[in-house]
Amino acid sequence: MALEYDSLNENVKKCQYAVRGELYLRASELQKEGKKVVALCQAPFLLDNPNVGMLFPADAIARAKHYLSLTSGGLGAYSDSRGLPGVRKEVAEFIERRDGYPSDPELIFLTDGASKGVMQILNCVIRGAGDGILVPVPQYPLYSATISLLGGSLVPYYLDESENWGLDVNNLRQSVAQARSQGISVRAMVIINPGNPTGQCLSEANLREILRFCYNEKLVLLGDEVYQQNIYQDERPFISSKKVLMDMGSPFSKEVQLVSFHTVSKGYWGECGQRGGYFEMTNFPPRVVEEIYKVASIALSPNVSAQIFMGLMVNPPKPGDISYDQFTRESKGILESLRRRAKIMTDGFNSCKNVVCNFTEGAMYSFPQILLPPGALQAAKQAGKVPDVFYCLKLLEAAGISTVPGSGFGQKEGVFHLRTTILPAEEEMPEIMDSFKKFNDAFMTQYDNNFGYSRM
Amino acid sequence: MALEYDSLNENVKKCQYAVRGELYLRASELQKEGKKVVALCQAPFLLDNPNVGMLFPADAIARAKHYLSLTSGGLGAYSDSRGLPGVRKEVAEFIERRDGYPSDPELIFLTDGASKGVMQILNCVIRGAGDGILVPVPQYPLYSATISLLGGSLVPYYLDESENWGLDVNNLRQSVAQARSQGISVRAMVIINPGNPTGQCLSEANLREILRFCYNEKLVLLGDEVYQQNIYQDERPFISSKKVLMDMGSPFSKEVQLVSFHTVSKGYWGECGQRGGYFEMTNFPPRVVEEIYKVASIALSPNVSAQIFMGLMVNPPKPGDISYDQFTRESKGILESLRRRAKIMTDGFNSCKNVVCNFTEGAMYSFPQILLPPGALQAAKQAGKVPDVFYCLKLLEAAGISTVPGSGFGQKEGVFHLRTTILPAEEEMPEIMDSFKKFNDAFMTQYDNNFGYSRM
Repeated sequence: MALEYDSLNENVKKCQYAVRGELYLRASELQKEGKKVVALCQAPFLLDNPNVGMLFPADAIARAKHYLSLTSGGLGAYSDSRGLPGVRKEVAEFIERRDGYPSDPELIFLTDGASKGVMQILNCVIRGAGDGILVPVPQYPLYSATISLLGGSLVPYYLDESENWGLDVNNLRQSVAQARSQGISVRAMVIINPGNPTGQCLSEANLREILRFCYNEKLVLLGDEVYQQNIYQDERPFISSKKVLMDMGSPFSKEVQLVSFHTVSKGYWGECGQRGGYFEMTNFPPRVVEEIYKVASIALSPNVSAQIFMGLMVNPPKPGDISYDQFTRESKGILESLRRRAKIMTDGFNSCKNVVCNFTEGAMYSFPQILLPPGALQAAKQAGKVPDVFYCLKLLEAAGISTVPGSGFGQKEGVFHLRTTILPAEEEMPEIMDSFKKFNDAFMTQYDNNFGYSRM
Repeated sequence: MALEYDSLNENVKKCQYAVRGELYLRASELQKEGKKVVALCQAPFLLDNPNVGMLFPADAIARAKHYLSLTSGGLGAYSDSRGLPGVRKEVAEFIERRDGYPSDPELIFLTDGASKGVMQILNCVIRGAGDGILVPVPQYPLYSATISLLGGSLVPYYLDESENWGLDVNNLRQSVAQARSQGISVRAMVIINPGNPTGQCLSEANLREILRFCYNEKLVLLGDEVYQQNIYQDERPFISSKKVLMDMGSPFSKEVQLVSFHTVSKGYWGECGQRGGYFEMTNFPPRVVEEIYKVASIALSPNVSAQIFMGLMVNPPKPGDISYDQFTRESKGILESLRRRAKIMTDGFNSCKNVVCNFTEGAMYSFPQILLPPGALQAAKQAGKVPDVFYCLKLLEAAGISTVPGSGFGQKEGVFHLRTTILPAEEEMPEIMDSFKKFNDAFMTQYDNNFGYSRM
């Protein structure tokens, strides 16, 4: 046979992918309006039906007409390989409002989800095993999997759990020095802000340090900012890497190369199945941008309906619009509920035996550490399972709670976590945490043979 | 700077991509019904509105409910990374009806367009520059660009224009022998059937030869069958590679590894902007299928609305359904009109000075050879243009007709073509061909200095 397991591209075999997101938020009224707009764009001839107003409100009809006018033949025709120019303009305006600095639609590429964008950029950077990419540990496995698939080298830097998953630049320096001593040319750095799976928000001061570090070390910064709307505390609002970079002024603002990623899959929308995202490039030479455009064109164009979702997401109702009050009320309501859920979950985990958990400042996840007693480690070994996988399987069997073992995200040796979302309905959350505690405390009692815990 | 032009992945720079499709068909009533189904799936709460029947017919409502029942949370939630199981089952049933052989939904992967599927498979096959892929010349540049991007070697085999772009297996053997003499391990072969840009349909006998060749040489066959509905003659109906392979029986049917690709972008639908496709794998070991599944999961899932379009496309009205007669009438009408357009275009080209053109048997393109006189070659050289690019630019300027220069698809040295679609409205076709003839004949007269032509 031509393609047997042994003759597969080794990089395909090497890559690991531990997690599949299965989450979505319940549709809000605002989302319903957006979905009506996209429905009309899918079937534009409905706009000519005299009964259209019986099902679709006037503003949805107006916005559908607006987005259709940006396409060249509706959702069934290819767009520009970077996405519809009109939607890229709306994204640029969103970035300008957010950061207070200009944004150029020609440097914005719409993608089939943020993951595809990350893969495109890493494909340009990685030339072979000698090229290294700094990636946080724990990390979202998109990065490890893609670097492995492209045959590059992952250079890990560890987030500090005892400092609420903070990022220490000295740690970064050590990681780079160690990689260089192994002959690896470190070329880019990934930050996930807010963090996945760790849920922390990076402070402005920390972002400055990171950007200065990238300037000194000549690294491209990949800013995964897909959770920028998901913030659950007031102390550290989301600040984009682009804004911090522009605030820093010359030479940083003119030289540090930054690619920022966003998506329609998170935030108030959670439209994962649509596969819509964008990236914005800062400080890249025009010839490099052209090459990225060329490669994007091989797959012709990102899907057009998700481009419309992106336009709607970056262009929410403004003061004075009919639906502005409703939008403000709803989005505030969603965020406040998520904030309460994050607190119920963190408090719940911290009330459990041998479980410690940082507060979820942002993103959608809780990432508690599970201090597994030696008896549990031994039982896992006997079952032929990694210890955190063993724990998560038992949790699923006993309590019906599905979580992702922390080892899929990368961990320090002998330290165990699980990742769960904060998305269950708020009213069900106390009961879920009760079930968890009941399972966990019984598990710990069963396996705790008083030989001490496996601590970080 | 970290990422300058010089430090880009060389494979990114090397790849060439000459063509961007810009085509779509006018919406038929059948398409409208499909679009209504997808619109309802986008905004499922409309189904609860008592007025839904004023805009949407009963069968669209029923099908929307069916497809929504196949999702886990509507179009906004991720699907399985291979696509919704229910839609993969519909694809498998379509293949079974088409070929008369069983098809397994677990071996079908839905993709964001067929191009993404081709890229996934080539990524698994190509391990480095030592791995070669047989690709027809002229070819659709997806193949050359992807092989280049992945750092593999393109092994060309030439289609024979004087034999209506037929495929000669002796030619294939020579290509393989030559590649091997250069140390290249030829691992896969691409066929495009019906051909793009060449428009030929492969005969059953030819497909058998190809499959036997793949068996003998241990090649994976990549069957690009995206134009399988677009057939404009009766002598050679489309026959899938899978059917021919199964007809051949053991050992071929058990051993030849085949990946077949299809799309919602062509056929009667032409829904390019949706980005929907699938591939079916035959004779791959389960471990290889698992690896391909793993890699597909890095980008989470193909977009879900295009999966619904795929379900609708492979599941057209059947005898006895309300809309069956309309479907049969419409699809027949579309095909007959395209057939007439293909004939007007071929006849038009062949009536022009120094232009020869094979009849478009399938797909959507006409690919005439332009015999450029030495004077034109010299003028192109003076203008710093490739000769066919020079011709196509003059054509655009003088007659407003946009075509793709043949050199983007690969050509024999000194032979020139252009590619154009047969999609302009039938009633406008005679006028377009008149304008073309007027431009071409004047061009030829201008540059024909009686020194003889550049012939193939």
